Amino acid sequence: MRFGLLLIGDELLDGKTTDANTKHLGTFLHGLGLSLSHVLASADDDGEIAKSLEVLYQQFGCDIVITSGGLGPTPDDKTKLAFAKYFKQEIIQRADVAALVGEHYRAFGREWAPGQNNYDHFPKDFTPVKNPIGLAPGLFYLHEAGKKALACAPGVPREFAAMLKESIYPLLSNHFKLIHRDTERLCVRTLGVPEETIFFKLAPNLWQELSEFGEPASYPHAMGVDIVVRPFENTTKGWQEKALEKILASPIAPNIWQVGEEEIAPYLIHLMRKKSLTLSFAESCTGGLAASLITDISGSSDIFLGSYVTYSNELKMSALGVSKDTLQSHGAVSIEVAREMAQGARERSHSNIAVAFSGIAGPGGGSAEKPVGTVAIAVSSKYGEHSELYHFRGDREILKLRFALKGLHLAREVTLKY
Amino acid sequence: MRFGLLLIGDELLDGKTTDANTKHLGTFLHGLGLSLSHVLASADDDGEIAKSLEVLYQQFGCDIVITSGGLGPTPDDKTKLAFAKYFKQEIIQRADVAALVGEHYRAFGREWAPGQNNYDHFPKDFTPVKNPIGLAPGLFYLHEAGKKALACAPGVPREFAAMLKESIYPLLSNHFKLIHRDTERLCVRTLGVPEETIFFKLAPNLWQELSEFGEPASYPHAMGVDIVVRPFENTTKGWQEKALEKILASPIAPNIWQVGEEEIAPYLIHLMRKKSLTLSFAESCTGGLAASLITDISGSSDIFLGSYVTYSNELKMSALGVSKDTLQSHGAVSIEVAREMAQGARERSHSNIAVAFSGIAGPGGGSAEKPVGTVAIAVSSKYGEHSELYHFRGDREILKLRFALKGLHLAREVTLKY
Repeated sequence: MRFGLLLIGDELLDGKTTDANTKHLGTFLHGLGLSLSHVLASADDDGEIAKSLEVLYQQFGCDIVITSGGLGPTPDDKTKLAFAKYFKQEIIQRADVAALVGEHYRAFGREWAPGQNNYDHFPKDFTPVKNPIGLAPGLFYLHEAGKKALACAPGVPREFAAMLKESIYPLLSNHFKLIHRDTERLCVRTLGVPEETIFFKLAPNLWQELSEFGEPASYPHAMGVDIVVRPFENTTKGWQEKALEKILASPIAPNIWQVGEEEIAPYLIHLMRKKSLTLSFAESCTGGLAASLITDISGSSDIFLGSYVTYSNELKMSALGVSKDTLQSHGAVSIEVAREMAQGARERSHSNIAVAFSGIAGPGGGSAEKPVGTVAIAVSSKYGEHSELYHFRGDREILKLRFALKGLHLAREVTLKY
Repeated sequence: MRFGLLLIGDELLDGKTTDANTKHLGTFLHGLGLSLSHVLASADDDGEIAKSLEVLYQQFGCDIVITSGGLGPTPDDKTKLAFAKYFKQEIIQRADVAALVGEHYRAFGREWAPGQNNYDHFPKDFTPVKNPIGLAPGLFYLHEAGKKALACAPGVPREFAAMLKESIYPLLSNHFKLIHRDTERLCVRTLGVPEETIFFKLAPNLWQELSEFGEPASYPHAMGVDIVVRPFENTTKGWQEKALEKILASPIAPNIWQVGEEEIAPYLIHLMRKKSLTLSFAESCTGGLAASLITDISGSSDIFLGSYVTYSNELKMSALGVSKDTLQSHGAVSIEVAREMAQGARERSHSNIAVAFSGIAGPGGGSAEKPVGTVAIAVSSKYGEHSELYHFRGDREILKLRFALKGLHLAREVTLKY
């Protein structure tokens, strides 16, 4: 069963918006042991939309096409029209769709009546699809004697995800025998070695060895490289353990920090919660990003007390007690200042562990001695203070992220000692 | 001249990675008055990659196809092989490519020799493309007697963007007459009214009026709705002023906060810099996100002093001087606590303006009286303290963002009074 995704919207093609729905659909299907075959993006134009749908069905052999976008109330929303035309369906005012739309509005405490917009004008034989968290209904249509399906969801990522899971998937399951394969990936997360070093220097036979179980892949991230194996259709159960054995027997074993796919922030939170530890930050160059990564995770308040985002030197002194002398003699980006920041954060917040960041995210502010990408990160814990200079590459955004991720990994390392 | 983008990688289709290169290419082409016609994503598979390329050229009539991904050193990187096969090109060891690769490595202070990887094995008649910030070279190939082009860049977004701008675009400009249209959009950013209210209630004729100048569009964001007009090919110069007049004469004028496309963070920074004002935050539910949005912008240190991310109540007291009484009688999520947080942040950081956030981002922690999505935001300035409860909808991630954006807009409003 081949799934295709059609993204509809000029704003995707001219760079005004980044698509998040491919990730939603890809993750959702993958979690069910299904997979997404092709993704296509098209402009807000009847002809282009219809042509793209045809390509997904005819050229790429998709059985089920899901679309995102173009369902709103304004005239640039052309999805409904394009597909009505394509399938030669009249658009009529439908009482059943009006009832569903009224229901959507009432969920928001709002009123809706026909004429307010064209939501109840609907292709004659399409099925309206409930929108669990929005106003516009989706569309569902079976064709080629029920062998092919089209399902249209809104472009807003939260609405797309909710409609997919709560409305579209149940409809598809009713009509198709969805064959769920065991596609559970094996993912091993490494730190500190580029992919080339892993596969050409340290473990030149590993790729070949892993190919026994499935398709290996290697994904470099902002920090670290994931080694992933996707099993073949006929790979026998229990393959993960055997593949993992091969990896653990290779020279990259010391670089592995996780067997699994968790991001470092939730990973660290789980680890610290298990050990009943608390965390605080003192952030200069990361500017609140370390705290924001942690507080993105629900339940972070179990371990996280707060962060002193001291962008100015005055605030480093007043909020954290960094001494003027240290700032003047070593500069804000120094292991000495980072150490005092971490100490200050730990003492003042009474956390078990504090991590401090002071660095240069650029593009300005670098020097020959301390170029852009330099960061001092200090960890304060019951084992004392450890402060060190690190160097990373990248633009401002990726440097902020790398600095913050490095700090979270250092917190993970000291947590393991408790 | 039609541009197509082909994204290559299993990790895009199974949701492991979100594509950022469509936005890079779309924005880049748009900035030049060119446009991207179609985007297609394909799995790491020779056959699928070749088939996708063919669809872009044959079905969608693309003249220039740019690809991203699959250029790395590991065997899951299949781009070079797939296109060599498709264009019936032998892959040979090439000294010119080896020289370029050596140059790439030296830029990172590293050594490279043939045999270390297969970067110098290259399709016979393809042109190697310099990678300004990475190791793998790109590919460039003219075919159909120079009428069509293929350019392949790495998948890593920073490398993709740099190679596109610094290497691929110059190559394309040499070979093609790229006709740059005046595609400058008009963008008007509004706050506080849903798109339906704008176009059906407040200004029901506006869409029609704007259609005189180009294609109108309406984009709802995490906060606010953008009204965008893209000019027709034959729209006469100076159309933006006339279209803007129509918008300003409509009842939505009071909801407009910007004519332009700047995000609120850089917009606020420019505004405060012009007035020589400084800013600090006291953050609970936003957990550092408000600070991180501001510090994402280079030069933010001109106006930004720091943020007290006080996730725990203890830290609200110790770092900001919020009184225990206020916390106990009103609860952490209250206009009273937010007011004391803002006051504390402004006094302790000596900033001109301080914004404080205390709310419930969920999914837990809500009550009948204060449901998830409730936030108290206070602004402290020389005009005193203003503190108010707001209600938003969404999941944890979007709520954090909406809370933070609302605070930045409130800071913008008070800045306008100075």
